[in-house]
Parts: sequence; C-alpha cells; structure tokens
Amino acid sequence: MEYRKIKDQDKDEESLGDDLESLRGKPPSTAMSLGAGPVDRTKWKRKSMVTLALTVLTSSQAILIVWSKRAGKYEYSVTTANFLVETLKCAFSLAALARIWNSEGVTEDNRLSTTLDEVIVYPIPAALYLVKNLLQYYIFAYVDAPGYQILKNLNIISTGVLYRIILKKKLSEIQWAAFVLLCAGCTTAQLNSNSDRVLQTPFQGWMMAIVMALLSGFAGVYTEAIIKKRPSRNINVQNFWLYIFGMVFNAVAIVVQDFDAVMNKGFFHGYSFITVLMILNHALSGIAVSMVMKYADNIVKVYSTSVAMLLTAVVSVFLFGFHLSLAFFLGSTVVSVSIYLHSIGKLQR
Amino acid sequence: MEYRKIKDQDKDEESLGDDLESLRGKPPSTAMSLGAGPVDRTKWKRKSMVTLALTVLTSSQAILIVWSKRAGKYEYSVTTANFLVETLKCAFSLAALARIWNSEGVTEDNRLSTTLDEVIVYPIPAALYLVKNLLQYYIFAYVDAPGYQILKNLNIISTGVLYRIILKKKLSEIQWAAFVLLCAGCTTAQLNSNSDRVLQTPFQGWMMAIVMALLSGFAGVYTEAIIKKRPSRNINVQNFWLYIFGMVFNAVAIVVQDFDAVMNKGFFHGYSFITVLMILNHALSGIAVSMVMKYADNIVKVYSTSVAMLLTAVVSVFLFGFHLSLAFFLGSTVVSVSIYLHSIGKLQR
Repeated sequence: MEYRKIKDQDKDEESLGDDLESLRGKPPSTAMSLGAGPVDRTKWKRKSMVTLALTVLTSSQAILIVWSKRAGKYEYSVTTANFLVETLKCAFSLAALARIWNSEGVTEDNRLSTTLDEVIVYPIPAALYLVKNLLQYYIFAYVDAPGYQILKNLNIISTGVLYRIILKKKLSEIQWAAFVLLCAGCTTAQLNSNSDRVLQTPFQGWMMAIVMALLSGFAGVYTEAIIKKRPSRNINVQNFWLYIFGMVFNAVAIVVQDFDAVMNKGFFHGYSFITVLMILNHALSGIAVSMVMKYADNIVKVYSTSVAMLLTAVVSVFLFGFHLSLAFFLGSTVVSVSIYLHSIGKLQR
Repeated sequence: MEYRKIKDQDKDEESLGDDLESLRGKPPSTAMSLGAGPVDRTKWKRKSMVTLALTVLTSSQAILIVWSKRAGKYEYSVTTANFLVETLKCAFSLAALARIWNSEGVTEDNRLSTTLDEVIVYPIPAALYLVKNLLQYYIFAYVDAPGYQILKNLNIISTGVLYRIILKKKLSEIQWAAFVLLCAGCTTAQLNSNSDRVLQTPFQGWMMAIVMALLSGFAGVYTEAIIKKRPSRNINVQNFWLYIFGMVFNAVAIVVQDFDAVMNKGFFHGYSFITVLMILNHALSGIAVSMVMKYADNIVKVYSTSVAMLLTAVVSVFLFGFHLSLAFFLGSTVVSVSIYLHSIGKLQR
C-alpha cells in the first residue's frame, strides 16, 4: 500500500466547523463532472483506490473468518490478536512516515510530535469501540448470533444520522432514500430461515442494539471529524496517534479479560498461520478505513463494507460451495439500486 | 361508485400516437404543483379516488380468497364465476350509462353504438388474458404455486417496459430505479422458507413465466391504449365493449373446460355466499382497473395492486392471526421507498 501526502492549502489549525465548511466547498463529485482539473482527478482516483482497497480487504476478512471457523475453533485469545492488530497498524504508519521523512523531510504536517490540543480527542473513538465491545457480551442475553448480525445493519442508519448531525454534511432526499434502501437491502441479503426470530427480540435487546449502533456510528463519524479537522496533516501521523490509543485500550482489555490465559499459556498460545493472516488483514483493513475517512467519508465507508458483504457471499460460492438464496439476489438488487441512487442524488444536489 | 364524464376537447377520432401525444402535453403531475387550476384538481382527485378504490378492492379480493380457502375447497366452476364477473361488469356499465343518458342525453361520446374501426381492437386484451390463463395450466409442470406467486412479480417489470415501448411514455431514471425496487420489494415481502425452490425453476419454466408476464403486461398496456385512444369517449361505453368480449371469451372457456360439469350439476353448482361476494368484488375491481387506465395509467395500477398486496398481509394479521415476517417488513420498506422515489422522480422530470 502506498501512502501519499495530501498537498493542502490550509496550514493553520482551524476550527472543526470552518474546516469542514472549506472541505464542503470543494465537493468530490466535481471530479466526475466534465472539465474537472487534474487535482480533482487525482482526488477522485485516490478516493476510488482507498474505497476499492477497503472493499476487497473487508471481503477477504470475512472469508478468512469463514475459513478459520471451518479449520476449527478460535484457540487463541482475541484480545491479544486485537492488540497485535493495533501494534501492526502503528508499525505500518511509522514505516510510511519514515519513507516520507526521507523524501520530503520533516515538516509541520508530517512530524510525529503533537500538541495536547490535537491529541486529546484521539482516545475517544477507541474508548467508544471498547464500550461497544463490552456491550456486545451482554446483548447475547437477548439476541442470538444470527439475530445480532441482522441488528448490526442498524449501524447503517445510525451512521447516516450522526454523519448529518455531527459533521453537518447534507444528504439529498434521494441519498436518504438510498441509505434506507442500503439498510433494507443488506438485511434482506442476510435473511435465512431463522431470521424471523429477531422479531422476538425483547425491548432491552432492541435498546442495546440501538445504543450499540449509535456508539459504532458515533465512533466512525468522530474518527472522520478528527482526521478531517486538519486536512493538511499527514494521515500517517493521525493514524499513528489513533492506533497508539487503540494499543493502550486493547492492552487494558488483555489484562481485564485474558490475564490468566496469557500468563499460563503465553501471549501467542493457539496462534496459527490463518490467525497471522487474519491479524495482517485486520491491520490493513483498519488503515484502509482511516484512508477512506480522510479521502472520502463515512457514507462511502458504509457502502464499501456493504458491497464487501455481498462480495463475500459470491466468493464463498466458489470457495466453499455456499448456495445463494433468493433473498440474497433481492437484497443485492436493492443494494445495487441504492448505490446508483446515491450517485444520482449527488449529481442532482 | 360514481361515474363521471370527462369533458375533453378532442372530439375527433385521432390516431393513437397523436392522441397520446396530446395527453402527454398535460401531465397529471401538474395537478400537484402550486397554482394548479380547478380542472387539474378535479383530475387529481378523480385519479386518487379510482386508485384508492382499486387498492381497497384488490386487497379485499385477496382477503376473500383466503377466507374462502379457510371455509373449504372451491366447489364451484371458476369459468362460470368468471363469466358472471364479466356479465356483472357489463350490467354495471349499462346502469351507469342509463343514468348519464338520463341526465345529459345521448351524445357522440356516450352513445353505445360504435364503428368497426373503434371496436375491432377491443377483443385483443380479452384474447391475451385467455392465452395467459391457458399457459397458467402448463407452467405448474415446472413451478409450484408459491413459486408462481413469486414469478408473477415479473409482471411489474414487463408492464414498465411495455408501457415505455407501446405507449411511448417516458419514465425518469429515478422512476425506473423505483420500478426495479417495487419488483424486488414485492418479492421480498412474499419470501418464505420455501421461496428458494423457485431458483431451481428449469429454463422452460423461466421462459413461460417471462412470456406470461409479457402477455399480462401487454394486455394491461393495450387496454390503456384502447381506453386512451379517445379520451373524450365515455369510459362506460369503452368498458361495455371490453366486457362484452370478456363475456364471449369466458363463454368459450365454459364450453371448453366445464361443459360436462355445468350440464350435469348446473351452472350455479357449488355457489355459496362467499362465492357471490367474490364475484361482486371481482366485478368492482375490474371496473376500478378500467377507471385507473382511463384517469391514471398502468404504472399507477401496478403500484396500487402492490400496495394492496401489503395491505392484505397486514389486515390478515388482524383477521386470521397471520404473522408478519422480517422479510415482509423489509419488502414493505423497499416498496414504500419505491413509491416515494416514483413521486420524486415525477417532479424532477
């Protein structure tokens, strides 16, 4: 993966609002219009590349999970794996920065040192994800695992709503319609004979699912806000600080949840080749998510991961002999129309 | 039900193409725009009323079918019932005409007598439906009944395509997207644990389903073309001639299919109170369809019957204690968004 530096004009630490305002002044959609300049083309290309990377990585992530489940149980501790993912992301960010420092020298935008003002918001997404992951243990008292997969699609709606409220970016009427369709389409594609059980979810289960969707949506939107606060700031520096806090929070999770197991059986107990692949994939996916936040937005991220879900199912047909259901075809159709409407809605804005 | 006469300017028998062109000159959507005149308001009101009537009648039709199935088997011959439906529609049309002749006198537009030129196309829809109904017996060699219900949603797409080709009316990009969603949403709402079997439909089954969808779509679009050929012509006269041929074709069907049964057990053998209700309902629905063709179009008809399908399911929850599936909620959401997009797409045309 290649990391490039964005040549941004604004070198000052502006307020979040102003900065997002200025970003909105140069909508990415112009890149697709006729007579777009080379800068717009480069931006559009970069946006497409990171989106494609995220889609492929997310899809292969799901395939690795299916593969590992088929190979046997999870023998390793998930918390150590998560910690390693964050560490690896930190290492990748530092390596990319080293290359940049070599070629461009250390500047205001790519130096690692930071101010308290800049760094103080960075732990927030990691903290939100931690709370969400803790809630995840409790929601299974009310919903089974397939039901949880279905309820997770509420993330799509919560991300859209929080994107509108927090980042103050507008979606057109058609784009809102497209977003509702994306949620309905993804859920439809995942339907199976047991899906109706989710309708029996008790009130507490629904509440927790909604809170988790809001936490996850808020974490995503907040990460975008942090990363876009200083558009000229090098993404690898921003990633480095995000991931450092990710490491800290996951270290806490190891101590709280798996201290005994790690002490008795060792940090790497139960690791296999596929575990290493999954950690590597998660790390790259995480970096791709940051890139999409920087060069595109949460809406693109949601579409990208939704397409990845469909892609996974299609690839699984060839790899594992899975069968595609009628619901999958219908859901995919709705998702495809949603993507089309989203792009149409942008042009008509 | 009240039948009103449309006061149209064009009293001449124009060619179909020209006439539709002139109709397109006064799009119904203007009725919803600001500053619409009283004529537009009346048109919009009439369009809404016939659409509502069609939705309610179609929905109660499905409920009557469920009710009759619960009450026992179909003991009566379907062909005699169909014949009576056509006869009743003819009688209703004549009654409405009698009222109009009383109040307005006999004019060029409401007189029953006709020319060969006008009437020669009227048997075509009835003939198309006959062929479709004959095919219906053969398709069950390849698809089961629930599968056939799913495949019937192809009607939605075929109606849209033929509406575009034959009536040369344009749908906007968003309206096309909405139409694909309507088809996907209706199918999703009907999904159940056996639906996937339809994917095993052999090639011949698919071909027959497509041909039947085209026949049904063509019959609908052709009826609209006939009815709109002379906008000033009274709808009850047009209906009378359509239904006369319906009677003829259904009389043929009685002779071909149920001659022995009718001869041995009598014409009305097996009729019950619910059978009479169903015949009455079918007759009124049929008239509502004609009205929608006259004052709205096939697209409105398709939306109306789709909403009726959803309405039936909801009403069945209260009447018969049916359970709504998650698929139903998802499908209903997609259909609702489709309706919203269709109306938005019209305004943006």
